[in-house]
Amino acid sequence: MHIVECSNNQFDFVSYSKERRELVENKLAEYFAQRDPNTLWESMSYSVLSEGKKLRALLCIASSEAIVGLGNNLESVLPLSCAIEMIHAMSLIHDDLPALDNDDYRRGKLTNHKVYGEAIALLAGDALLMLAAETLIEKTPKNIDRQLLLNIVSRLCQATGAAGMVGGQVLDLTFTGKLTELQNSRSIDDHKEVNTIEAIHRGKTGALIRFAVWSGASLAGANERQLLLLEQFADKLGYAFQIADDLLDSTGNLVTLGKTPGKDQASSKVTWVTVFGEKLALQKLEDLEKDGMDILDNSKLPSKNTAPLRELLKYAIYRTS
Amino acid sequence: MHIVECSNNQFDFVSYSKERRELVENKLAEYFAQRDPNTLWESMSYSVLSEGKKLRALLCIASSEAIVGLGNNLESVLPLSCAIEMIHAMSLIHDDLPALDNDDYRRGKLTNHKVYGEAIALLAGDALLMLAAETLIEKTPKNIDRQLLLNIVSRLCQATGAAGMVGGQVLDLTFTGKLTELQNSRSIDDHKEVNTIEAIHRGKTGALIRFAVWSGASLAGANERQLLLLEQFADKLGYAFQIADDLLDSTGNLVTLGKTPGKDQASSKVTWVTVFGEKLALQKLEDLEKDGMDILDNSKLPSKNTAPLRELLKYAIYRTS
Repeated sequence: MHIVECSNNQFDFVSYSKERRELVENKLAEYFAQRDPNTLWESMSYSVLSEGKKLRALLCIASSEAIVGLGNNLESVLPLSCAIEMIHAMSLIHDDLPALDNDDYRRGKLTNHKVYGEAIALLAGDALLMLAAETLIEKTPKNIDRQLLLNIVSRLCQATGAAGMVGGQVLDLTFTGKLTELQNSRSIDDHKEVNTIEAIHRGKTGALIRFAVWSGASLAGANERQLLLLEQFADKLGYAFQIADDLLDSTGNLVTLGKTPGKDQASSKVTWVTVFGEKLALQKLEDLEKDGMDILDNSKLPSKNTAPLRELLKYAIYRTS
Repeated sequence: MHIVECSNNQFDFVSYSKERRELVENKLAEYFAQRDPNTLWESMSYSVLSEGKKLRALLCIASSEAIVGLGNNLESVLPLSCAIEMIHAMSLIHDDLPALDNDDYRRGKLTNHKVYGEAIALLAGDALLMLAAETLIEKTPKNIDRQLLLNIVSRLCQATGAAGMVGGQVLDLTFTGKLTELQNSRSIDDHKEVNTIEAIHRGKTGALIRFAVWSGASLAGANERQLLLLEQFADKLGYAFQIADDLLDSTGNLVTLGKTPGKDQASSKVTWVTVFGEKLALQKLEDLEKDGMDILDNSKLPSKNTAPLRELLKYAIYRTS
């Protein structure tokens, strides 16, 4: 494996992320190649192997490298990164179903149920949930401490389930349609609205992003203090990622975005942008970027090792799709 | 804990199963009582805490007791039994959704999505999948070997996912509507049809039943030979359970059955009964009962210890709902 490190003081994020993304994609292709071809596996592969940012996998790897140094321990963290991408893929499949967001396009392609039908898409999501945990257990190197691996599997379940991602989706559903009430008090100082939006984000997208960062570092042997700081960093990044997403929904188009834009306002979804408007959203993004960078500055981790995490925070904010 | 053992040579299955079922129900109630009340947890609880046979939990406990003796190690096996019931509950929730079987009644009550809506029911199923694995990891006593516990979690994922329950549901979907073709060659010697039905059953209901028996014994320290025999026993029981289910669908009514009867024939589902008819189904059940009992006879396990498994096999076949 030839892995770009810092060749000089200039960190080459484009090469770094391209190489890690390929490692994850190749590993996922390997996991899915072993299977008998049938409709279920096709449906699962359609979503997991589709092009995507692989942001969560990159965060997991970058967080591991923040502890052990760039290019180290990648084989250990790859199964975990792939498991996280499987969970992310399943969340998109179920989220796009008619019973939830009823979306026809995702990443510029037809959504899973538009290709395979609702029944198969539903079951493919279920199967991906279980495959994620199975992959994490079976493919993580055997020299990893067994209790540590159990902790990571358990935290994956928590991040994905009722206390995390799924819980956030339910909150999102609960508040969708109640936008007008919240818009009537459009003040960033009104903590009730901020708390509502934060609770939705913390679950729906934040939980898996936090898990990605926590688990990568945890597998790499981070201590409690490092884990705490990295989780705080992940919370800033996750929140920024979601606000950037909401901004893109408000300002993007189908070609650059790969999914139907303007849906949040049309369906009265409660987001930072629909409640506080674009200007305050941009201001919040600035604050979150500064907070995230400050956390890494104060982490005592070598700045060379945290360079990928810094770039990923900027990417989460300044991406165009 | 006061647990019925064999007070004399007569094994009291009614008391045995009542006590174990209560242990499982109380433990599930304990797990679900700790949660903040909200729609998602209500929806999850609605299905998990509803009255049911708890057959899979009982099988898991009985299989553990077949190894360590009646009344022993119950605290170790209870979290696992509860996890299995959570998986079973989620499979019913997703199965009943309009995208799949579109059923309005289950165990005489409205199905989950008829009460909480499709979106919440879908998400409650997802959350239960993850809670099952989390419960197994967090609640199983810490003195259980960590690698053994990882193996059990991994096997749970396999039994539930694409290679097990979910895969069986996809096969079921694939063959539903193709009944007429199969009925035209209604001969029990025609292996193509038997193989199709067996493959559907092996996944859809068989995989979780096999896991229940395997995991209970595995947690109790069974050796490879014992595990192999108990899995063979579980396959007979699982198959018999499904054929009995198909017979009940064909002959039952809403009051005794608790769900809409006659749906298999109406929706051209491929089952032993719709393909071969009731008479051959009854004959097959007799064969499976004999095979199952023979396996236990040859297992070298004390017959006192295997009494619950024998009774559960009979119950799977002769139950009326």
